[in-house]
Amino acid sequence: MVRVAILGATGYSGFELLKILLSHPQVELTALAGRREGNPRIDEIFPTLAGRTELVVENLSAEELAARADCVISAVTDLVSQEYVPALLKRGVKVVVIPGDYRLRDAKLYQQYYGHVHQDPENLKRAVYGMTELFRDQIAKAELVANPGCYATAALLGMAPVAKEKLVQDDDIVIDAKSGISGAGKQANEVTHFVSRNENVDAYRIGVHKHQPEIEQCLKDLAGGRWRVLFVPHRVPMDRGILTTIYLKLTQAIPADELRRIYDRFYVEAPFVRIRKKGQLPATKEVMGTNYCDLGLTVVQGRLVVVVAIDNLLKGAAGQAVQNLNVMFGLAETLGLD
Amino acid sequence: MVRVAILGATGYSGFELLKILLSHPQVELTALAGRREGNPRIDEIFPTLAGRTELVVENLSAEELAARADCVISAVTDLVSQEYVPALLKRGVKVVVIPGDYRLRDAKLYQQYYGHVHQDPENLKRAVYGMTELFRDQIAKAELVANPGCYATAALLGMAPVAKEKLVQDDDIVIDAKSGISGAGKQANEVTHFVSRNENVDAYRIGVHKHQPEIEQCLKDLAGGRWRVLFVPHRVPMDRGILTTIYLKLTQAIPADELRRIYDRFYVEAPFVRIRKKGQLPATKEVMGTNYCDLGLTVVQGRLVVVVAIDNLLKGAAGQAVQNLNVMFGLAETLGLD
Amino acid sequence: MVRVAILGATGYSGFELLKILLSHPQVELTALAGRREGNPRIDEIFPTLAGRTELVVENLSAEELAARADCVISAVTDLVSQEYVPALLKRGVKVVVIPGDYRLRDAKLYQQYYGHVHQDPENLKRAVYGMTELFRDQIAKAELVANPGCYATAALLGMAPVAKEKLVQDDDIVIDAKSGISGAGKQANEVTHFVSRNENVDAYRIGVHKHQPEIEQCLKDLAGGRWRVLFVPHRVPMDRGILTTIYLKLTQAIPADELRRIYDRFYVEAPFVRIRKKGQLPATKEVMGTNYCDLGLTVVQGRLVVVVAIDNLLKGAAGQAVQNLNVMFGLAETLGLD
Amino acid sequence: MVRVAILGATGYSGFELLKILLSHPQVELTALAGRREGNPRIDEIFPTLAGRTELVVENLSAEELAARADCVISAVTDLVSQEYVPALLKRGVKVVVIPGDYRLRDAKLYQQYYGHVHQDPENLKRAVYGMTELFRDQIAKAELVANPGCYATAALLGMAPVAKEKLVQDDDIVIDAKSGISGAGKQANEVTHFVSRNENVDAYRIGVHKHQPEIEQCLKDLAGGRWRVLFVPHRVPMDRGILTTIYLKLTQAIPADELRRIYDRFYVEAPFVRIRKKGQLPATKEVMGTNYCDLGLTVVQGRLVVVVAIDNLLKGAAGQAVQNLNVMFGLAETLGLD
Repeated sequence: MVRVAILGATGYSGFELLKILLSHPQVELTALAGRREGNPRIDEIFPTLAGRTELVVENLSAEELAARADCVISAVTDLVSQEYVPALLKRGVKVVVIPGDYRLRDAKLYQQYYGHVHQDPENLKRAVYGMTELFRDQIAKAELVANPGCYATAALLGMAPVAKEKLVQDDDIVIDAKSGISGAGKQANEVTHFVSRNENVDAYRIGVHKHQPEIEQCLKDLAGGRWRVLFVPHRVPMDRGILTTIYLKLTQAIPADELRRIYDRFYVEAPFVRIRKKGQLPATKEVMGTNYCDLGLTVVQGRLVVVVAIDNLLKGAAGQAVQNLNVMFGLAETLGLD
Repeated sequence: MVRVAILGATGYSGFELLKILLSHPQVELTALAGRREGNPRIDEIFPTLAGRTELVVENLSAEELAARADCVISAVTDLVSQEYVPALLKRGVKVVVIPGDYRLRDAKLYQQYYGHVHQDPENLKRAVYGMTELFRDQIAKAELVANPGCYATAALLGMAPVAKEKLVQDDDIVIDAKSGISGAGKQANEVTHFVSRNENVDAYRIGVHKHQPEIEQCLKDLAGGRWRVLFVPHRVPMDRGILTTIYLKLTQAIPADELRRIYDRFYVEAPFVRIRKKGQLPATKEVMGTNYCDLGLTVVQGRLVVVVAIDNLLKGAAGQAVQNLNVMFGLAETLGLD
Repeated sequence: MVRVAILGATGYSGFELLKILLSHPQVELTALAGRREGNPRIDEIFPTLAGRTELVVENLSAEELAARADCVISAVTDLVSQEYVPALLKRGVKVVVIPGDYRLRDAKLYQQYYGHVHQDPENLKRAVYGMTELFRDQIAKAELVANPGCYATAALLGMAPVAKEKLVQDDDIVIDAKSGISGAGKQANEVTHFVSRNENVDAYRIGVHKHQPEIEQCLKDLAGGRWRVLFVPHRVPMDRGILTTIYLKLTQAIPADELRRIYDRFYVEAPFVRIRKKGQLPATKEVMGTNYCDLGLTVVQGRLVVVVAIDNLLKGAAGQAVQNLNVMFGLAETLGLD
Repeated sequence: MVRVAILGATGYSGFELLKILLSHPQVELTALAGRREGNPRIDEIFPTLAGRTELVVENLSAEELAARADCVISAVTDLVSQEYVPALLKRGVKVVVIPGDYRLRDAKLYQQYYGHVHQDPENLKRAVYGMTELFRDQIAKAELVANPGCYATAALLGMAPVAKEKLVQDDDIVIDAKSGISGAGKQANEVTHFVSRNENVDAYRIGVHKHQPEIEQCLKDLAGGRWRVLFVPHRVPMDRGILTTIYLKLTQAIPADELRRIYDRFYVEAPFVRIRKKGQLPATKEVMGTNYCDLGLTVVQGRLVVVVAIDNLLKGAAGQAVQNLNVMFGLAETLGLD
């Protein structure tokens, strides 16, 4: 049994982690760290957990966490992880960080996109980017895993096979993503008010979203060369799910069937990636509540159009974090996730 | 032309008022009072109004409002109206107050349900309760109209004919209401977050909601005697609309057709109340964006079950406020509302 | 391992059954019976199941089902179960019927509410009503279990403790239910069209819904005497979940705390019923995707108001069916359901 | 007063037409043609119209329509308009066709995309494409106007200024559109079922949607040359509204401010097109229930990204049809639409 603690269990990703880990056959959930007055039971915060756990939210230091856990999964807001990670690593605790703190290896790029100076630049290079399907071997040996962003996960799984094989142009890529509202986090503000979002679709942060450099960095790691993507996120009125449509220019004429075979081969050992048959396209509802990533491929006008569907809170956050945990501790990759 | 100012134009009711009054053939919208830094144009707050008005939101005193308007409609949050009303009335300006400040004539009852001491108790008794269909004559002469609550409007229009005729027991009344989320106001908090409300239904404030005493006070005014209702509101995942199901005990056996005739007669001069035919029930979507109140009547097990549908922001707030304005200024009751 | 077949796997309840049974540690899912041309794989109908099963939908007779299964769970439309049940029982196969075919013991009452003559009246009396929490012992010995209706489940779990103890009047009961749209089934028609239901709430079948006699029959079985309820269902724009508000008249003054203790005691061995603490009310989202039934109790004006939340497709259909299956085969009641 | 009849008033576009035309100050709505048994009143089909009209749906021939109307607006399903148009034109009645029958001038292209032979090829060339902002003068003289498709409207208004000025490449255009479900029409089927669409986003008909050739034909008419676009529609869970994100490659470096000026100039006489200021992007909710088309411009990575929001049932269908009617009859373009 791996002893796991959650840092920041009261947000959306934390809630999903709780549900997964409470049923995970090889995990003992030992602590929930957070700053809530009076150390409330977690089932007071999430009544749906009543009867499933008696865990409380405690204000725990890195030292206290290290005493109770072999692995800490962080699901807190930006910056907080940077306080905990150095002390946890020093004590031999493995860490998976769901927020973006350790994804960009370049501290300056981090500062540019996240708007503040990185507090733990030493560990930036030590972090392994936790796109499980692409870096399974490094993750298996990692002490610190930077869990990918939800949008980045969908984009990268959709492009990886053809990027790796250099079948698409590296400088003419449009990624148009549509996300459910849980992606905006639990913060209540004008943007997340029900009446603001219901019956509404809009675009935001065109070309300046912080997942864009993350996608580019990973493509370079994977396939070498220079990659430039235009990433445009949209908000759609539903709880969860991301549908991403990727517009790629093929460098040569390849029939869709052949591309489908290339994807099948690339993901042959990836239990959570499913390639749709000819003529079928994925939908977010078909992956809702699962760790799957469904892909549909269409070739038209010299372009490859990839449609990707994931659950942003699972494959895009908590599910992939547990997938990485499984790999880091030598467990079956799907444990607790099906 | 009636010169009208809006006090508090940036909330949901204010927005509806704006849309109605900008198209109202006998109203000149002269001022928008509110506390926004830098006196922004209202179309910067509501981009959908771009091209329709150049009005700005100004921090205006009662005196300044009085100089510009024959009538002020208040759509601010609780308590603010109590600062403005005395000075406005003194200057001969007519006022319609949409929030609950002037609905309960008893200042103690007000304090019990609203949680603070009333700041303008003198004018409480002067206010006419603005349930247009029930008190048209008093409203025509009123200087201060307390616009009814959204839930109260639906409940009262559903019960008035049989209450007036004493055809139902006055102490065995259940009012089960289902409201869209705009009813909770524009305040962003955990309750109004999209993910909290989407795919969710719940009940709240069972038997202690502040619209309950308002319903009882109005029934006593209308029909005399003692009236006791159990009012239970629910939140449903949609923007706007209230569906209220009222369970009444008939004091004598009356066929549904006869009841339908009684309702038809009672509302014969009410252009916004529509009684459904036998076997038909109203739905919130059928009154969305209108000032109508649709009623469906069913007799079963010695009970009369009335189903009422209104748009909470129109007949339940801004629409009824304009209906009252029309009556107060001798205009056709439907002007600007169809 | 219990060999289980599903009759009618392509509807909403069938889909939930599939997801539960494919993960159930003591069940082997052996067959899916249905009438689809070309015996398609079930993951072609539900792409979300891709990679989880290779089962196909086959046109199977009762004899063929009996050869492959120890238990058949029927999730077909009305009437079809009546063709299969006699032959299955004769061959010693246990059956759980999710649709309403075997719930009413009186064939005339069945005809009145379902609109056709019952085809298997002999087995009507043999059927045990599958409200697990109320009839666990009979279900354990049953060969044929009539799974309760979704609305009936919520209503009965909300009232059973006080009905049993005769703490409420048996002739003054209002049950106001709000259901998500999956309750209307997979049939595409004007009523289930997205645009008909989205941003809309309405009532239907006031006092004539077929779950009403089922509730009354069960209350009589449970508590003796004559019970009369007024049941009024409403449709709200969400996928799944029922919130039912029950208005009961207390026969004596009892404080809410005492009532809460009575409920706690009544459900002390019911793992899926959760009573909320004082001041807390349930919400459908808190039981979504679970087999829980959450209850909130409020005493006001001499009435007990019970608010009940269930997932209509789980505790209201497929989940309870598996709960009954577990009881029928001597397995832990929660197996496969947490 | 212009006497107007609606052919096919019972669909979504027909309903919007009804609401607009019943309030239009220069239109007398004289007939509703359709095939409904028993010539029902239209307010029996749309209860929300009760009290606003007594019109009935009648099975009328082209001759009968011509006797009653100066203009017929067709909102029927595909093919039916082709039966009526020749006879109506022959009798001097002007016609606006909302469905796609007369949009493509090439009968072969029509056959390829619509799947059947055109029944009235003679009138194809006579039809004026009713993109009001682009072809106002021709529309003013037209006898037959082919109202643009909803997707085409959003795409064309988003691109017209830079296409006309040849500021973007004509062969590298991606149009990613997100539409509410009313766009799929009133037909009840598996795709339009509430549970299929709610909490779901998907793509469909990638590169083969019938609005694609319509967009290309119009760009050629407007700007000459060869235009090739990749159009990809998506469905999002809301009633109405289209948000279209257009990815264009600039042929030269132009700052966003300069592009904004070009758009402002191009649309200087277009009352329904609104260009957002720097840093602002449109949202579908801000145009809901209006005939506006809101545009947001962003320049990034050598691309112009245009975000367009319209209400698919108004500017995308019924609203634009009335806008065209106004132009055809010399009325103010905004009459009945604000």
